[in-house]
Amino acid sequence: MLGAEVLLRTLVANGVGLCLANPGTSEMQFVAALDRVPGLRSVLCLFEGVCAGAADGYARMLRKPAATLLHLGPGLANGLSNFHNAQKAHSPVVSIVGEHATWHRRFNSPLANDVEGFARPVSGWVHMLEAADRMGEAASSAVSAAYGPPGAVATLIVPADFSWSEAGEPGRVAPIREPARVPPERIKEIAGLLRSGEAAGFFLAGTALFGRGLDAAGKLAASTRVKMVANRYAGRMERGRGRFPLERLAYFPDEAEKTLAGLKHLVLVETEAPVSFFGYPGRRSELAPEDCVLHVLAGREENGAEALGALTEEFGARPIEQAAIPDAGTSIGPLTLESIGQVMATLLPENAIISEEAVSSGAEIERHVRHGAPHDWLPVAGGAIGQGLPVAVGAALACPDRKVVALEADGSSMYTPQSLWTMARERLDVTVVVLANRRYRILEIEMTRTGSGSIGPQADALMDLHRPELDWVRLANGMGVEASRAETAEEFRKAFDAAMRGRGPRLIEAVI
Amino acid sequence: MLGAEVLLRTLVANGVGLCLANPGTSEMQFVAALDRVPGLRSVLCLFEGVCAGAADGYARMLRKPAATLLHLGPGLANGLSNFHNAQKAHSPVVSIVGEHATWHRRFNSPLANDVEGFARPVSGWVHMLEAADRMGEAASSAVSAAYGPPGAVATLIVPADFSWSEAGEPGRVAPIREPARVPPERIKEIAGLLRSGEAAGFFLAGTALFGRGLDAAGKLAASTRVKMVANRYAGRMERGRGRFPLERLAYFPDEAEKTLAGLKHLVLVETEAPVSFFGYPGRRSELAPEDCVLHVLAGREENGAEALGALTEEFGARPIEQAAIPDAGTSIGPLTLESIGQVMATLLPENAIISEEAVSSGAEIERHVRHGAPHDWLPVAGGAIGQGLPVAVGAALACPDRKVVALEADGSSMYTPQSLWTMARERLDVTVVVLANRRYRILEIEMTRTGSGSIGPQADALMDLHRPELDWVRLANGMGVEASRAETAEEFRKAFDAAMRGRGPRLIEAVI
Repeated sequence: MLGAEVLLRTLVANGVGLCLANPGTSEMQFVAALDRVPGLRSVLCLFEGVCAGAADGYARMLRKPAATLLHLGPGLANGLSNFHNAQKAHSPVVSIVGEHATWHRRFNSPLANDVEGFARPVSGWVHMLEAADRMGEAASSAVSAAYGPPGAVATLIVPADFSWSEAGEPGRVAPIREPARVPPERIKEIAGLLRSGEAAGFFLAGTALFGRGLDAAGKLAASTRVKMVANRYAGRMERGRGRFPLERLAYFPDEAEKTLAGLKHLVLVETEAPVSFFGYPGRRSELAPEDCVLHVLAGREENGAEALGALTEEFGARPIEQAAIPDAGTSIGPLTLESIGQVMATLLPENAIISEEAVSSGAEIERHVRHGAPHDWLPVAGGAIGQGLPVAVGAALACPDRKVVALEADGSSMYTPQSLWTMARERLDVTVVVLANRRYRILEIEMTRTGSGSIGPQADALMDLHRPELDWVRLANGMGVEASRAETAEEFRKAFDAAMRGRGPRLIEAVI
Repeated sequence: MLGAEVLLRTLVANGVGLCLANPGTSEMQFVAALDRVPGLRSVLCLFEGVCAGAADGYARMLRKPAATLLHLGPGLANGLSNFHNAQKAHSPVVSIVGEHATWHRRFNSPLANDVEGFARPVSGWVHMLEAADRMGEAASSAVSAAYGPPGAVATLIVPADFSWSEAGEPGRVAPIREPARVPPERIKEIAGLLRSGEAAGFFLAGTALFGRGLDAAGKLAASTRVKMVANRYAGRMERGRGRFPLERLAYFPDEAEKTLAGLKHLVLVETEAPVSFFGYPGRRSELAPEDCVLHVLAGREENGAEALGALTEEFGARPIEQAAIPDAGTSIGPLTLESIGQVMATLLPENAIISEEAVSSGAEIERHVRHGAPHDWLPVAGGAIGQGLPVAVGAALACPDRKVVALEADGSSMYTPQSLWTMARERLDVTVVVLANRRYRILEIEMTRTGSGSIGPQADALMDLHRPELDWVRLANGMGVEASRAETAEEFRKAFDAAMRGRGPRLIEAVI
């Protein structure tokens, strides 16, 4: 069997059902094999960053890997920032990268570059295939490595000649390693800590943020009064009415420090200790108080949800306390972040998925939307801009029966606008809300925070998106996506309502 | 003086006059300093790949570096594929990348990653600044390293705290190293070879492709009948009526081998030996005949133009022979590559610059345009798709008085469409011609060449850009660029004529 077919059959046998592709010449054998081997749906993206981000979104929802198929070092390079995000979100991804034929690699041909070097910073596992007949084994290992735990980007680099050479049989079905069980003594230790009466908090990520994990966290909070805080950069979080209203630790360190102030103990669940996004002049990076002792309930490779469940048994299960639901507002008058948030909270259908990359506008909208119908929240995980639209693509491919909302800023949307084309081609049920403030507003805020002084005309020009204004209706239409512009709360409500009732991709440019 | 100001003043003192920026928080001090230090024009790009590609285009035209200013590892990652192209083109570029504050780097904060690791595959020089007071020296060294020779991407990574700390005085004005003179004995040796009467050819790049170098190559060809061939991936080439009609070695190896067939000697000028773009089954990568002996007249760090000039003195200067100029055609009827090429050849103004990334459509158009008015041709250098529009941006910033034409494919344009916004903002005199065949046509060709078999429906879907069709008029309008669609030769002629007579950015979608 030719190498390309071995690779494809091994992926399919290991449950990989989706391939996000932007292939080139060195991947043509793999592309041809797609028509001979059933079971792998291929989706074309017009830019590699869309492939990488979509694989991230898919993995966040299904907790299983999609494959990406990219072309040589430079093709991979275009996917790196979203692979960075996927790796930080611990999303399992199998990244297949074609490489020049083995005898061609020693030449300095135009596309020749250090593919492994490109892959390493964003991958948990990198492997350059060394012989055609190792293809099956390598593909199995890639899937294993992607699953982890913790989930990771596993990059398999395949020289073109190994794809068109005889390569034996497909690799084995790799066993999926479950996250390790937290030892009972550790649970006892944390239980003892909670009984000590000293001010304690939990800092949560991974499986603690959805399903039984989130439920257990809520019950534990209700019975012990311990403070529960989510790592805001965790890949996925369930929210909305009826669920434990877990707070995400704020982006700005002042606010985050306030949340954690007074804690003598902080218990980590599937996350490292909280640190600020950036380092600022004269300020610690750590956000927990200096005298706060850190404890690990569950590491990233362990089952935090189960450990939280075990802890709740120690303290008895009290019903989760709900947050008071604020007034939904009237949604008339000018369009503001508040009215957008209110409209979304009111109209969001049950079980929606929100991919959020609204940067400076996100917090105010989130404040309202968290009280809407139950939904999944997929936040920025690695901080690399350009993930929101691709993650929405991947979430919609993963969950075709759920409404996906991409909550975007105009600045951030421009890093991977090609996502809109794939939404149109695959008729994905994604509503994109572009919050158009015509500015890199976050930079204005950070300029002050870094003590850089006042904003002169040159600096201003580097933050201003007015000249010319991006017309998101035309941009979306240009890629086959229906779109409209909203300049008042009422217009936004109408457009969002229609989008929630309809199916298929739409874009709303919300001018704020 | 604060570090950011030291950095900026050192760049300005070293003649760096342009900064292509997509900054973030860690670069805010540098951004603020732009308003305190005169002499550095900053241009905002909405995606990092545009910054990198524009710096490449600028360097190809002016042979001096622009600076790029990118944000941490992930921001750099988005620029890598165009830095790859710049490095392959030997374009001098000073790439400034902000990094987290030194004390913040040990934390696994969201954006933390291996910035040096990202930079290494695409840089000739990488330096992580180790102390604030080394800023001036490091910035000088970066400029030196960028100049080479050969030109290179020089990446200076600047931790944020070094930008806001006291950093002493600006660095020295670094001497610009001129390309080394080729020793006379080598010139004598090659002269002897040419006199031997054995079939010999020259393979040319770098300074041999424009100005006095190209002129010397033409004279040498006229007096010795030696075959002159250009490396098609060299960064810049002067062409058009009145100039030596130097042939570029073909993309497909069969054709390239035919060009070089029968040569017993191949003399290299500022380039390595010719190799095929990809390796194909059962085929050598080298393009020169097996028994052809390679000779080096000038390496990449040497002055090939001067060496060619010295050689012409050995053989007496005959006037350069012109190619016959083909019929310009009538430009009526359906729109074809031929009619597009004819229209362009006829209407191209004197001294235009053509940035070409037309992929499968390029050769046929080039066949005509090369007989147009004298112009510069900026081809794909590193093969990473997405360079054409950014290179046009950079060329227009470098040469504001010259008309720039970006000759693009619809597939390739979608990798860095954000370039259009910068064209609109800076009112650059760029005419973008998008050849819309609604297909990754090159993949179809390569599928056959790699022996991958027939194109089934899944494979076809990965090459098809019909569903949905990209509407380039709307896309361009959405980014503030005037645009029109041409479906007949006459429509194309009208649109291209208007674009050549007018000024400012325009886009023509040529439906082929």
